[in-house]
Amino acid sequence: MESDIQEYLKPQLAQVRRHRDTAFRVEGTLMGEVARYVGGRSGKMLRPALVSLSARAFGYDGTGDHDTLLGAAVELFHLATLLHDDVIDKAPLRRGRPTVCARWGDDVAILFADYLYATSFDFALEVLDPEVVRVLSKTTQKMASGELYQIEKRGEWLSIEDYYNIIQSKTAHLFSASAGLGAIIAGEKGENVERMFRFGLNFGMAFQITDDALDYEASGEAWGKRLGGDLEEGKQTLPLLHALRHGTPEDRAALVAALNNGRDFETVHAIVRRTNSIDYSLERAAEYTRAAQDAIAGLPDSEPLGHLRRLTETVLVRQH
Amino acid sequence: MESDIQEYLKPQLAQVRRHRDTAFRVEGTLMGEVARYVGGRSGKMLRPALVSLSARAFGYDGTGDHDTLLGAAVELFHLATLLHDDVIDKAPLRRGRPTVCARWGDDVAILFADYLYATSFDFALEVLDPEVVRVLSKTTQKMASGELYQIEKRGEWLSIEDYYNIIQSKTAHLFSASAGLGAIIAGEKGENVERMFRFGLNFGMAFQITDDALDYEASGEAWGKRLGGDLEEGKQTLPLLHALRHGTPEDRAALVAALNNGRDFETVHAIVRRTNSIDYSLERAAEYTRAAQDAIAGLPDSEPLGHLRRLTETVLVRQH
Repeated sequence: MESDIQEYLKPQLAQVRRHRDTAFRVEGTLMGEVARYVGGRSGKMLRPALVSLSARAFGYDGTGDHDTLLGAAVELFHLATLLHDDVIDKAPLRRGRPTVCARWGDDVAILFADYLYATSFDFALEVLDPEVVRVLSKTTQKMASGELYQIEKRGEWLSIEDYYNIIQSKTAHLFSASAGLGAIIAGEKGENVERMFRFGLNFGMAFQITDDALDYEASGEAWGKRLGGDLEEGKQTLPLLHALRHGTPEDRAALVAALNNGRDFETVHAIVRRTNSIDYSLERAAEYTRAAQDAIAGLPDSEPLGHLRRLTETVLVRQH
Repeated sequence: MESDIQEYLKPQLAQVRRHRDTAFRVEGTLMGEVARYVGGRSGKMLRPALVSLSARAFGYDGTGDHDTLLGAAVELFHLATLLHDDVIDKAPLRRGRPTVCARWGDDVAILFADYLYATSFDFALEVLDPEVVRVLSKTTQKMASGELYQIEKRGEWLSIEDYYNIIQSKTAHLFSASAGLGAIIAGEKGENVERMFRFGLNFGMAFQITDDALDYEASGEAWGKRLGGDLEEGKQTLPLLHALRHGTPEDRAALVAALNNGRDFETVHAIVRRTNSIDYSLERAAEYTRAAQDAIAGLPDSEPLGHLRRLTETVLVRQH
């Protein structure tokens, strides 16, 4: 997130962190250990930023602390989904550290995620608007359905449509909820709330596609992760799926072999480049970014609206 | 549940089943399969009955369908917790059928449970009272913490206190929530809501202790399950824990061996009987039953209150 947006939201994001940290003060030895492990890292707070910027774009002035309560709610919700994702992907590492499921087992990861979901709802309840909680419960339903779909497809080749469905469940629904919740706590209804849901959904799609493309090609500084991690975990993301459809029969055989054994990143990378699959993916991301910007194009200009627009551009900037 | 209570609540329980069934109409092949499997059985509806009877004991007349919406909420919540319990206990069977985790895997069981939790919250949201949703989110937190505690103790010997903590998380908190929610939708606050939480908590403890005792000794008709299932799954329940503390050193060695290999029910049963561990357990259940009845003793008499009182007695009746 750009430093001027960080600066603009400094008090809000600090408050979100304080709320968030209360959720990690828990009893029980095992629970305490997991809480310290999960809570010990502070993320980019992109979803809380969406809530606050969206609310402020509709004139919300911070009354009742609603944006930061919901910021904590979406951040905890996000952490819960990461724990689930790692279980489903059987991921050994996240950002260089063992995942909770690898270290303590799938059951512990999923139960701790349930605790975080429930705590997320608790923060949302403080806003005293049933619509707010309903947005979160619907998001949970959509995400759980999407994760089940992903499991159903495990071991099969995904269609491009499957890929979009999966990233929508995994990432875009919660971006959508975060932006929509901002409009709701600002007192908006109907069309403006829908706009923000649409904005968040498209931004989330652009964000995840870019993330998946950069896993195949990014300079080390622009990117916190090591390249090739998705291939190693057997994840079928857009660059790979596009290359499969546009490579030679020999390319396809090499890609299938590499995906199955999680190795030969250099070979895969060469095919992905030759089939222009990274450019193709980044173009799709750019389309979603434009759709996100279109969704908020008709709104009256303001500083927070400008930040929202620029947030979507930072996704594209990450390409270089 | 006694047939006159079934008769008294007939329209309510039918409506709960209709609400419940809507949750199982889902899209997706895998999700649809799991939904048909889980939704294909109708339970005793004890928790929805608690909601309706508790509400009616405080004069609730059915306005807004609130008791049956919450009945569906607590029933779906209950089904979600059963899916989780089976994952944690690594249970192969539930009531003679393969568990969801045994048939589709732990991840599917837990994600489908998350879907059910979210749907449960959705039903609760229709009542438009944040306190109602808060009761459910607090119950989720307490149950998830309790399940994590159970995992932490896996492979260790439980203290009697551990056992009580575990059954409180596993069973009594949701009984407590169900009874308390009834009072809340009837417009009660403060002391009367607390009474019903206390009633449900004690009733839930009595129910689970009786269930655990009857797993060691019950006539086939009074009891739907085969004897010895808990031993087979390595569950440390009160009869076993009591026998461990009151048997001879030889008894203890035999119990430890039997629990570790899940066999020799006859030997264990003989020790459990000789140490009066079933009677001991049923006496503890009777104490909790009395505490449940004490909690509602001061309330004005009514038909639903009489049914609530008798519900707690049916727990004791199951002993014979």
